[in-house]
Formats: sequence, C-alpha cells, structure tokens
Amino acid sequence: METKNFKAFGTESAEAPLQVLNIQRRIVTPKDVEIEILYCGICHSDLHSARNEWMNTVYPIVPGHEIVGKVTAVGDQVTKFKVGDLAAVGCMVDSCRECEFCQEGLEQYCDIGATLTFNSPDEHLAEQQTFGGYSESITVDESFVLHVPENLDLAATAPLLCAGITTYSPLKHWNVGPGSKVGVVGLGGLGHMAIKLAKAMGAEVTVFTTSQSKVEDAKRLGADEVVLSKDAEQMAAHAKSLNFILDAVSAPHDINAYLNLLKVDGSLVLVGAPLQPLPVVSFNLILGRKSFSGSLIGGIAETQEMLDFCAKHNITADIELIGVDQVNEAYERLLKGDIKYRFVIDIASLKK
Amino acid sequence: METKNFKAFGTESAEAPLQVLNIQRRIVTPKDVEIEILYCGICHSDLHSARNEWMNTVYPIVPGHEIVGKVTAVGDQVTKFKVGDLAAVGCMVDSCRECEFCQEGLEQYCDIGATLTFNSPDEHLAEQQTFGGYSESITVDESFVLHVPENLDLAATAPLLCAGITTYSPLKHWNVGPGSKVGVVGLGGLGHMAIKLAKAMGAEVTVFTTSQSKVEDAKRLGADEVVLSKDAEQMAAHAKSLNFILDAVSAPHDINAYLNLLKVDGSLVLVGAPLQPLPVVSFNLILGRKSFSGSLIGGIAETQEMLDFCAKHNITADIELIGVDQVNEAYERLLKGDIKYRFVIDIASLKK
Repeated sequence: METKNFKAFGTESAEAPLQVLNIQRRIVTPKDVEIEILYCGICHSDLHSARNEWMNTVYPIVPGHEIVGKVTAVGDQVTKFKVGDLAAVGCMVDSCRECEFCQEGLEQYCDIGATLTFNSPDEHLAEQQTFGGYSESITVDESFVLHVPENLDLAATAPLLCAGITTYSPLKHWNVGPGSKVGVVGLGGLGHMAIKLAKAMGAEVTVFTTSQSKVEDAKRLGADEVVLSKDAEQMAAHAKSLNFILDAVSAPHDINAYLNLLKVDGSLVLVGAPLQPLPVVSFNLILGRKSFSGSLIGGIAETQEMLDFCAKHNITADIELIGVDQVNEAYERLLKGDIKYRFVIDIASLKK
Repeated sequence: METKNFKAFGTESAEAPLQVLNIQRRIVTPKDVEIEILYCGICHSDLHSARNEWMNTVYPIVPGHEIVGKVTAVGDQVTKFKVGDLAAVGCMVDSCRECEFCQEGLEQYCDIGATLTFNSPDEHLAEQQTFGGYSESITVDESFVLHVPENLDLAATAPLLCAGITTYSPLKHWNVGPGSKVGVVGLGGLGHMAIKLAKAMGAEVTVFTTSQSKVEDAKRLGADEVVLSKDAEQMAAHAKSLNFILDAVSAPHDINAYLNLLKVDGSLVLVGAPLQPLPVVSFNLILGRKSFSGSLIGGIAETQEMLDFCAKHNITADIELIGVDQVNEAYERLLKGDIKYRFVIDIASLKK
C-alpha cells in the first residue's frame, strides 16, 4: 500500500523521552479523510502507554487521541467531509461495525475490540501500530471522523474528544438532568469537564477533592458545593444525598466512603482506572440498591452529540497550550497534578 | 399497653443454643392482625443474628421472618384480613411510611430504617425488641401482612417471604424476562429460588457452583446449564455472555471472575452479604459499562406481587420440615450447606 511520510512526536521505548519521529501514513483510500492536525490534547493514557504502564505498548508509539484539525484530502467515496472542513478524531479510528454493539453505536465496546487511535494493530499498514495525534497529519475512515462546531476555540475543543466524551457519556447514560444531584470525585482533566457538562445538563453538582487549594477553582468551574473528602464531618453531612457520582480518580481511593453518599438506587461510576483492585463492602451496595459501575469513552454518534451539546452551551476545556518541546515536561507535571486542566499541543510547533 | 403471653423459640445469648422462651406480644390495636403461626422458614440471617455475628443483636432474640399462618384476631379498623384467612409476614413489620422510599413502595429502604420482624426496637412495647416467627403467634399492622395464595403448599410457601422476595425483586428491577441470559451464583436457599423465578420469567438460566454434586440438582430445578466455577475453561467459555448475574454467595469469593461473564451493560447483583470487602478490578467495570450492585429483600406491594406470581407459576421452595427441637442442629447443617434448600419449622411442634 502506498504511504506518505509525516513528522510525529513519540518514543521508541518506555524509558526514552518523547522526540521527533518520522512515520508513515497510508494514502487516502476511497472512504478516508486526511486531516492536518492543528491541536492535540494530552490525556493521562498517553503517558501510561508511552511508558508501557499497561504493559501492552508496541514501540515506536505516537500517543494522542484528542485531535482537531482541517481536512486536507478526501477519498472519492467520502460524503461527510470536504477539503477545508474542520474535523476531529477521538480515541477510536475503526471497529468491526458488525457486532451488536457497533450496530447500536457503542463502538467502544465492539465485540472484537475497536481499533484505537494509537497502539492498535494498523489494519491498513500490516507492519505497524496505529499512530496518534502527536503528528502533523492523520488519515481516518470518515465514519470515525467528527465535525467540529465553528463557534468553539479550536485548541480548547481538542480535550472534548476524550475528557469530554468520557464524562458526557455516563452522565447521559445514567440520566443526569434537572433535579439530579451529582457528585464529581477528583478535579482534573476529566473532573473539570464533568462539572461543566453536568451543570449544563441542569444538575446540582458537588465536587469532592482532597485539596483545599482546589475549592475556589471548583466553584469557578460551576460547582454548587465543594467538599474536602478528608473531612469526615463534611462527608457525613452528605450521606445518602447524591443520585450519581462520577469518579475520575485514577489513584487508589476508598470507594465505600463515596457509596455512602449515594441515595437509594444511586450509581457511582468509575471513569478513572486505578490499577489496584478496589475493596467494596457488600452492605454498601445492598442497603439502598446501589451500583458501582464503570464507563469507557463513548460511541461515535454520541461523541458528535457531545460536540454539538458543547457548541450549544459554549463548553470547552480549560487548557494550557504547549509546544512539542514541552511535552516531556508536561508529562512530569501531569504526574504531580500540576495542570489546570488539560495540556494541548500546538502541532504547528512540530513543523518548525 | 396490654400484652399476651406466647411460647417462642430463641436464645438469651450468642453462645447459648436456642430454647423455648416465653414472650409477650401486644393485644391487637385497631390496625393489627394477630396471626397463629403455622410455619416459619430458617434464613441464614436468623443464625447470624442469634449468634450476634452482625454485632447488633439485643437479647433475648426470637429469629424468623419467613412466616405463614392463619388470622386469629383483627383490630376494628382492619379491612384487608378477617379471622380464618391465611396470612404471611416477611422481613419487615413496619416503616416510617412517610419518606419518599416508603411512598414509592420501597419500605426496605425506608429513610429512618424499617422495623424488622426481629431484633428491631418494638414501637409498641418500649422495653423489648421485636420477636420473630419462631413463635406461636405474631401481631402485625395489616399494612405489613401479606395474603397467601390458596393453591400453594403452606410450609413450602414460608421461604418465599425472604428467599423468594430477595431474589424476585432484583430479577424484576433489572428487567429479567424472555431473552435474558441470567447467571445464578451459589445454589442454596436464595439460589434455588432464583433459578425457579428466573425460569418462570422466561430467562435462560446458567447456574455457577463449586460442587459437582449440585449439577444434577440445579438442572432438576430448571437450570439450562450448570458451570463448575473452579473450572477455568468452562468459565472462559461463558465470558461476556450474561445480561444479569444474581450472586447469592455469602462467603468471600472472586467477584471479578463473574464480572468477566457479563455482556456490555450487564449487572452483577449481590444478595448474599460477605463480611469481608470484595476487591473489584476497575477495568472489569469500565470495559463494557458493567455494574456491581446490591439488593435488599423487596417492598410490601412487591412481596404480594411475588406471592401472586408464585401462585400463578406454582412455585414454592424445596424444603425440609423440622420441629423446634431440631433447630439447633439445623443451624449446624446450614453452616455446612447441608440442606436442599430451606429448613422450615413446623410451629405445631412448639405447642406440644
């Protein structure tokens, strides 16, 4: 298959810092859209994968699945995009499209596994993995490309493609709306999106954080109330008060303390993924018919719905725009939680 | 308040065997129904409470919340029962009736806590706890008394009041019906009811057991398939196949092995209550939007609905009928799982 060379930013090993790499992308096939990448957000999974922390990385790796840009070429059967359009790509670039989940628009739960934007076997180029958005350009089947609303800041839109949909999808699935009392645990990239989205859906939002320093900022982002989770008295005052809790913490933490905050029939949904198993006290589920659940990003149609919802409510991420030369430092700051609330790479910096 | 003496079977301490006790019950108030108890099932919680394993027992205790009998007196405002009617009492004898959960028919999740049939403070007799069904007679507000269908074996109906509703309620709440693929974990008092009820609802039922000796019996009870949970190959063959799993095991066990058997959007619901926290691997919830939930008995209206459902489908428990003099031995056999599948006390034996 014909290929084209592009500059990208990635790494050849778990120990090496990220650096400029040359990669190959396929030439557009009839259904493909080629996108000049303008901005790419940095998600914590980029770091996990670059450093092989999930022990499934194939090197070289080019991370990045919060991609926005401009269409530079389209295949001759493409109907939804034309050259010059804004376009976005999230966490997936393909799936089987035939299983019951793909048919229902739940491509993220594809029976044989969706093709992820980076570090999945590339169906088109047999000898390599998919390469993500830390790159000048990406070529993706139009079914997995999203339309970007014109009214949003483009750089701040990039994180919607992962942090946005990861929080939007469970809020919608568990019917959050006017009258809902929602808790958000963990104020980071995901948590700050959850506050904005839940508020726009009409919910009352309480944020739980371990750090006093985040209280004011949580309120600025729209939280109705902020609770210091280490304060047993404040926690007790919120017992049995919430319909839904979105838990975006990926470090080990006590799930039982939050299950106690749920009302009857309430759900606590994990979108962060702590590596260690989380001990759950059975009575905390039984007394009140409560659920401890998880959710993974969202489907393609739902991702478009989320972008349109954000356009309507003028929602984007709070970002810090950086050049590729700052990515390695950004990873270190990410580990310390030193970012409000998402790094976005200005891909123009890669072309210099 | 006026009281009446009755013979009962209970214990004065965690260490002492159960024996005949004399207890007092209130004389019927205007809304009360007095029931001559004919049969009372033995639930594992009777044993937990008699031996103070949940560390909340007030002695003396008279266990028993699977009660069927005959109405012997009614208060002058009682409208739903008359003397001579069959009647049943389950796990609750009262609740606040005013909170949102009581109003919705979820008395088991009453905001201030339902009055349990035994070992709750007795609202009528200030100096004692409520006494359960190991007794000649019980007096209960008619709102918490159930009608017993005439076509069912009376002794085998008793276990429906706890084992029946505990399994019926989550099967209904999680929409089990024709086309559902249901797993039942643990073939004991609850599990054997779950098989019968899920089959009657139209589901395909797979039973998971640790003992080869239960395979044939699970099939006799209606299971479409039986899997030995220690056999990794059999378990792997059922990965991602079930919509709903009812987990009736109260010993520690690996929840993650069962979460892997759920399809996308599937739920595993605990009705057994292991004392130790159960470690849950976050990816097992996130990949497939799965839920780990709990459920506690069922509301009063739903308990009546369950009894009527059992009447229609001719469902009762498989029981071993014993006299009160066999209760202490039955507790020991219960600990060994040596019962197919519920002990029921013939209360006539108490009157001798």
